[in-house]
Amino acid sequence: MITVVKIGGNVIDSPELLADFLDKFSKIDGPKVLVHGGGKIATELSKKLGVEPNMVDGRRITDADTIDIVTMVYAGLVNKKMVAALQSRGCNAIGLSGADANIICGVVRPKEPIDFGFVADLTDDSVHEDHLKQLLYDGLTPVFSAIVHDGNGNLLNCNADTIASSIAVALSKKGDTKLVYCFEKRGVLRDVDDDASLISLIKKEEMDGLVSSGVVAKGMIPKLTNAFAALSKGVGSVVITQAEDVLTAAAKPLGCGTTLSL
Amino acid sequence: MITVVKIGGNVIDSPELLADFLDKFSKIDGPKVLVHGGGKIATELSKKLGVEPNMVDGRRITDADTIDIVTMVYAGLVNKKMVAALQSRGCNAIGLSGADANIICGVVRPKEPIDFGFVADLTDDSVHEDHLKQLLYDGLTPVFSAIVHDGNGNLLNCNADTIASSIAVALSKKGDTKLVYCFEKRGVLRDVDDDASLISLIKKEEMDGLVSSGVVAKGMIPKLTNAFAALSKGVGSVVITQAEDVLTAAAKPLGCGTTLSL
Repeated sequence: MITVVKIGGNVIDSPELLADFLDKFSKIDGPKVLVHGGGKIATELSKKLGVEPNMVDGRRITDADTIDIVTMVYAGLVNKKMVAALQSRGCNAIGLSGADANIICGVVRPKEPIDFGFVADLTDDSVHEDHLKQLLYDGLTPVFSAIVHDGNGNLLNCNADTIASSIAVALSKKGDTKLVYCFEKRGVLRDVDDDASLISLIKKEEMDGLVSSGVVAKGMIPKLTNAFAALSKGVGSVVITQAEDVLTAAAKPLGCGTTLSL
Repeated sequence: MITVVKIGGNVIDSPELLADFLDKFSKIDGPKVLVHGGGKIATELSKKLGVEPNMVDGRRITDADTIDIVTMVYAGLVNKKMVAALQSRGCNAIGLSGADANIICGVVRPKEPIDFGFVADLTDDSVHEDHLKQLLYDGLTPVFSAIVHDGNGNLLNCNADTIASSIAVALSKKGDTKLVYCFEKRGVLRDVDDDASLISLIKKEEMDGLVSSGVVAKGMIPKLTNAFAALSKGVGSVVITQAEDVLTAAAKPLGCGTTLSL
């Protein structure tokens, strides 16, 4: 069983939550992969450098200055700090972008109707799992930032949820794979302000109803869409849970959070 | 034969020189490792962020803000751009810091007489070559920034020349290794302003005389000291040459630049 864990930006922004998460992640048995988002550091650095965020329809346009900034912050600072922290916990981490060992080669998002700039979409062929599996076989724990490349020398910004599901799908071709999305909430909640309203199991057929009733909204919609796509492409299980429960989520089926099922 | 190449900051700062260098580096036969310095980008970013360089005796003090900046620039931006550029040239590069796979674990430089902050010295045990050799065996080309870790969760700034020689020494334990230092000059020159004054061979016994006569001065002294130490610890050959001659230096003994010999 290979465990692929994605950790969100809100956890990365909190040193205490992150330290606790890394303690637990480093204790997960068996081969594992970590994919991390960015957090607020890139936005703060952009502001300091006078590079104004350019948002269209709530999504960030990644121009040449911005891809440099997110590469510095995500693939440099956040990634290497996380690797050093895991090393100090006895976890032999290796920090990677998708360009490294050509593990993730994306395609630039179509320029119409909106040109998002240096932003990647992933296809079914984007993840080249051979070197990734070799690293796992060698006892290493790959830690991915959400920066990929296009094969033509360009770095591209990508969605970390998408990277995590694409990696899990690619690794599931030859073995059991579990995908765990960690964020700051207990899982999918019926009432976002009530931790007790956790939905412990969502079947794919229930998804449309949850969206139309407004229970699943905003950023949770692509997260669930990604998750169900991963299940239909061979990933054994997907759990959405809070960062402090990562060890339970990796070890026990239905132990915590929201489990998704086809 | 494994070729370890170090590329200096002045080449990195010139897009044309760097592109030409990467064209040639990607064509070197056999397993190879690239170690890169930083260039001016980190200094420029520091200034923009209002982090004043703090120099003592001509050497930079690396405080907490500065290690974040050099990690962003060297391990993030410079490293990943170089990896993406090599990938587009058909070279399967993997960008690493010393923290990744715990390949280079340094020790913080002693705080007396001057506290240099987050700066690493390397010892004879600092390079753990097992995973590095595995990456080479798997057909990958490791590309190192000059950031290492201390094993306790801290990232440390290190000298790229020292990293290159330490890697070459570690890899030479089980095979022939060649070390090529690339910079903007043809090699060691008798007259720094006269390219025709290249010294094509320097024996170790000549070093003291070249220093006392002033031919070898400033940054070239630690470079040569590093190089002779590498030879005495098992590296097969060391060449100091200009970046555009990297392919010749890797292929032919005494083909270009300054060759060092015990």
